[in-house]
Amino acid sequence: MRQAGRYLPEYNATRKQAGNFLNLCKTPELACEVTLQPIDRYGFDAAILFSDILTIPDALGLGLHFVEGEGPRFHKKITCEQDVADLPAVDVADSLGYVADAVSLIRRELNGRVPLIGFSGSPWTLACYMISGGSSGDDFLSVRKWLYSRPDLVHSVIDRLTQLVIDYCDMQVQSGAQAIMLFDSWGGLLADSHFEKFSRRSLQTIVDSLRQRHPDTPTIVFVKGGGQWLESIAATGCDAVGCDWTVNLAQARARVGDRVALQGNLDPAVLLGSPEHVAVEVARVIESFGQRGPGVGHVFNLGHGISQFTPLDNVSVLVETVAKASRRLA
Amino acid sequence: MRQAGRYLPEYNATRKQAGNFLNLCKTPELACEVTLQPIDRYGFDAAILFSDILTIPDALGLGLHFVEGEGPRFHKKITCEQDVADLPAVDVADSLGYVADAVSLIRRELNGRVPLIGFSGSPWTLACYMISGGSSGDDFLSVRKWLYSRPDLVHSVIDRLTQLVIDYCDMQVQSGAQAIMLFDSWGGLLADSHFEKFSRRSLQTIVDSLRQRHPDTPTIVFVKGGGQWLESIAATGCDAVGCDWTVNLAQARARVGDRVALQGNLDPAVLLGSPEHVAVEVARVIESFGQRGPGVGHVFNLGHGISQFTPLDNVSVLVETVAKASRRLA
Repeated sequence: MRQAGRYLPEYNATRKQAGNFLNLCKTPELACEVTLQPIDRYGFDAAILFSDILTIPDALGLGLHFVEGEGPRFHKKITCEQDVADLPAVDVADSLGYVADAVSLIRRELNGRVPLIGFSGSPWTLACYMISGGSSGDDFLSVRKWLYSRPDLVHSVIDRLTQLVIDYCDMQVQSGAQAIMLFDSWGGLLADSHFEKFSRRSLQTIVDSLRQRHPDTPTIVFVKGGGQWLESIAATGCDAVGCDWTVNLAQARARVGDRVALQGNLDPAVLLGSPEHVAVEVARVIESFGQRGPGVGHVFNLGHGISQFTPLDNVSVLVETVAKASRRLA
Repeated sequence: MRQAGRYLPEYNATRKQAGNFLNLCKTPELACEVTLQPIDRYGFDAAILFSDILTIPDALGLGLHFVEGEGPRFHKKITCEQDVADLPAVDVADSLGYVADAVSLIRRELNGRVPLIGFSGSPWTLACYMISGGSSGDDFLSVRKWLYSRPDLVHSVIDRLTQLVIDYCDMQVQSGAQAIMLFDSWGGLLADSHFEKFSRRSLQTIVDSLRQRHPDTPTIVFVKGGGQWLESIAATGCDAVGCDWTVNLAQARARVGDRVALQGNLDPAVLLGSPEHVAVEVARVIESFGQRGPGVGHVFNLGHGISQFTPLDNVSVLVETVAKASRRLA
């Protein structure tokens, strides 16, 4: 998940300098700066590219902007067949070159300190925003309606996005990203029979393509609310499966086997609690995974994004607790 | 789930007459009227008491009201130990007698046509609203914070509510409700280790008490987003487990066994689609449960509440499809 954010005073200073959130993402020097801030402050074991999941829809000309306190909005949205046909051809290197530049710059500035993880939104999740015109207060009901009236249109949006996500991730790896994480933030809104058709299939296509192009670059797939589908998420061929905080890691591991690592799964609300609870809950997550062994991996992480109200010291407690446990388990 | 609602023109007429939503719930004659409207129009096989899940917090003096387009709000909320201690003693028969009156009246008006299902919100779900002061735009993060700072306070709110929910459901059964459904709308927000402590345990206490008092009245437990915990939900001893639309019914059945029935699980968004898709998806849900047999039950239902934008004719298609399948399977 995003490491930088409004809980960090240095992030707020850089964001102010950028003028707005989108400028921050689109200015490689500033994106690099905020990517490194949490690494400098906390010494995390990996850096995560600072960007937004909606850069691809923005490159498709939908006009991404952010309304304070309301999340992302688009000036245009996809409402019919013609809108899908009208989506322009996008040369990722051209339209999203600012992301490639940020990745190269971050790698240079990191100078080998820690690996850099790039990312993209999943086709289904991007389609949700593109069809609804922004974030949703009703679990994207207006988008889910399409699944039962014009599934062909949703498929054509998703097919289009799948190719773009592949090119986008490929570009990030070519620019220096050392792992790719795919965020299916809204996969958990799909009916069981639809998760396969409208999300998992495209995730598999992306993972397959990246494996062919970059066999040594690990992929991580995270489906929020996807706890029931961990086996089929693992079957995309990804190297790690992200788990939100509702997942029991021991059971998850028993279900997916040791071929894939698990990433997660601390409830972000833990970081709003008392420092004592932070230490207890972080340890609980680590213990819940069970015995480590050769080729059996758990990547500690939050189970979703960090809250802007997170006290700085709680993150220090998290890092110390993870470090202590890692030394004990090593 | 609620059968009446804004998708029905006759409901909107009665609601207008009531002045506001809460008056509608608190006036037994009007609550009876809207409870019967969908039965009269569609001939459903059971009626569901029309009420709100927040009647208990309202009886506790929190001042329930509804802001148009924003959902429920309370004038007071629980913010500290003192607020919990200050919650008044509530005599359910006294403060919530209007619900008992509605139930009696509905039973009289139904006159044996179909059975009547009563309901209550779960203690955890009611606590979410009471601590946050209304509905939430951030998955009740402010409430989940309490779980990691003052879990004792959350427990004391939940313990208090558990007793009230028991008395409330008891009163409904004594007034004529022939089954009780417990709605844990926000159980799916809990970390795996917390679902047991902060929700399931209180659900089990309620199911146990109702069984002791009314051994012949079935209980149904629905946890939205609880697909990972179906076994432990079934272990409350309830007679049926509600399944949201993300659940695979065949897998659910294999997991919980045939002791409990399953209720659900059509995606409410299906009813916003085309009539052809409604018929296909309803049939798919029925088929997904698999072979019926003696003592093996599936109660067809939506996987969550019906949308106000549902076209009337789509509900007719649903009912016809279920009736046709039932005749075939009988």
